[in-house]
Amino acid sequence: MRRSDRIALISKVLLENPNKIISLNYFSKRLQAAKSSISEDLDIIKNTFITLDEGELSTISGAAGGVRYRPKRSKQDIDAFLQGLCETLRDKKRIIPGGYLYMTDVIFSPEYSCIIGEIFSQIFIHRDPTCVLTVETKGIPIALMTARALNIPMVAARRDSRVTEGPSVSISYVSGSGQKIHNMSLAKRTLSENARVLIVDDFMKGGGTAQGMTELVAEFKGEVIGAAMVMATAIPKEKLVQEYTPLLILEGIDTHKGEIHIRINDKL
Amino acid sequence: MRRSDRIALISKVLLENPNKIISLNYFSKRLQAAKSSISEDLDIIKNTFITLDEGELSTISGAAGGVRYRPKRSKQDIDAFLQGLCETLRDKKRIIPGGYLYMTDVIFSPEYSCIIGEIFSQIFIHRDPTCVLTVETKGIPIALMTARALNIPMVAARRDSRVTEGPSVSISYVSGSGQKIHNMSLAKRTLSENARVLIVDDFMKGGGTAQGMTELVAEFKGEVIGAAMVMATAIPKEKLVQEYTPLLILEGIDTHKGEIHIRINDKL
Repeated sequence: MRRSDRIALISKVLLENPNKIISLNYFSKRLQAAKSSISEDLDIIKNTFITLDEGELSTISGAAGGVRYRPKRSKQDIDAFLQGLCETLRDKKRIIPGGYLYMTDVIFSPEYSCIIGEIFSQIFIHRDPTCVLTVETKGIPIALMTARALNIPMVAARRDSRVTEGPSVSISYVSGSGQKIHNMSLAKRTLSENARVLIVDDFMKGGGTAQGMTELVAEFKGEVIGAAMVMATAIPKEKLVQEYTPLLILEGIDTHKGEIHIRINDKL
Repeated sequence: MRRSDRIALISKVLLENPNKIISLNYFSKRLQAAKSSISEDLDIIKNTFITLDEGELSTISGAAGGVRYRPKRSKQDIDAFLQGLCETLRDKKRIIPGGYLYMTDVIFSPEYSCIIGEIFSQIFIHRDPTCVLTVETKGIPIALMTARALNIPMVAARRDSRVTEGPSVSISYVSGSGQKIHNMSLAKRTLSENARVLIVDDFMKGGGTAQGMTELVAEFKGEVIGAAMVMATAIPKEKLVQEYTPLLILEGIDTHKGEIHIRINDKL
C-alpha cells in the first residue's frame, strides 16, 4: 500500500468514529505498515484538516493512546450554516395554524441533524459529558447525532413508562408554557450514577421540559452539564432553567403578515 | 496541495455524504487542482476501498455527474457484526419481567444504529426508496441512520396527531400481538405523493404496526418498497405483512433458565 492508499483508509476510519481513540496498532496491522509511516500519514491528515478547517486530529500517548478525530468548525462556518438554517425556517409556509412553526423536516433531516449534533458536540465537549439525554420524540434525531459526535450513549426519557424497559423512575413536571402537568420517565438501567448529562432538545419555550429532565437526572444522582436547544423563544425571557444554549432565537411569528422572526443566538 | 492532502479531504467529504453525488468541480475548486488530478485521486480511493472492503465509489457522468460513495459491507463483515449483536443481546440481564427483551441501549446507540442503518441501506438501495418511515419512538434512531446512509428524508408517524405539525392523516390499526386498537398519524406535509417508502422499525411481533404504516402510506398514495426490522419474533410465523426483512430472529425467551434464543436471519 502506498501513502495515498493508507491516507484514504485512515481518513475514512477516523471520520466514522468521531471522538474515539484509535490505536496506531490498528492502522499498522490493517495496512501492514510501520507505525512510523502511520504517524507520518496522520501528520499529513492533521495538517490538511487544519488548513481546510475540517476538524481536529489529536495524538494521545500512553498505553491506551492513539489518534482521535473531533469535528470542529470555525465560527464563520457555524454562522454560515445557522444563517442558512434561519432562511430555511423563515419560509411562511412553515406557519402552522395556532402560530406554531413547523420544523420537523429540518430536525429529522439526516443532514441538518448531523451538523447540528457536531456543533453541539463542539460547544460542550470540554465539559466532559458522559451521556446525552432527551425526551421523546422530536429531540431524538438531534440527540442521537450529538451523542455520535461525542462518542457517548444517548438516552431518551419517555412520556410514560414502558413495560419493555423494566423498572423506571417517573417524575411529574409543569410545562412552563401550558401550565399542564406532564409525566416523564426513564428506565433505571439507562443512566448510571454520577453521569454527566448533556440535555438536548429541539425547542424550548418556558423551559419546563428541560427542568423536568434536570429533576430526572437528580433522581439518578447525575449532574446536568448543559442544555442544548436548536431553538428557544425570546419570550418568556426567564425560563424555568437558568442555563441553556439555543442555536437560534425565535423572536415571534406574525401570522397576519406571514412573517417568522428568527435570529442566531449571538452569545454562541 | 499534494496528492495525499487531497485524498485526506476527498475521503472525508465523501464519507460525510453517503449516497450523494459530489461534483468534481467542488473538489477541483476547493483543492485548487485540475479535474484530471481529482479523477486520479478518486481512482486511488476507489481501489483502496474495494481492496479493504470499505464501500463503493462510483463515478457518474453528465451535467449532474460527479462521484458518489456508498457504504457496502461484505457478507462476512455483516455476519460478524450480527454475530456480535446476537451475543450482546443474549445477556440474561436483558430479560425484563413479563418476558420482554431490553434492547433500547443497542438501538439508541450511535455506533450500532449507524452500522445497522448502513446495512439496511445496502439491502434496499436498489429498490430506490425516496424516504424512510418509522413510528415513534424506538424506531427513530435506526430509521434516521438508514435515511442518512441512503441520503433521503426520514419521516416519523406519531401515536397521536400534534398541533405543531399541522393537518395530518390518522389511521387506526389493531396490533397483531395485543389485539388492542392504536392510532397512528402523519402530518400531511411530510410525505409527498408517489413516495417510495422504506419502513424501518426496531421490532416486529405480529406485524400490526408495520401494517398500520403500510395503510398510512396508501393514504398518501405512496408505495412501500420494503420493511426493515432489527428483530422479528419467530412466532407467530404469519405476520400481518407479507414482506419484511429482519436482521435477527427472536426464537424465544426462557425466563426460568435465563436464556434468550436469538439467531441471524439466514435469508439476508
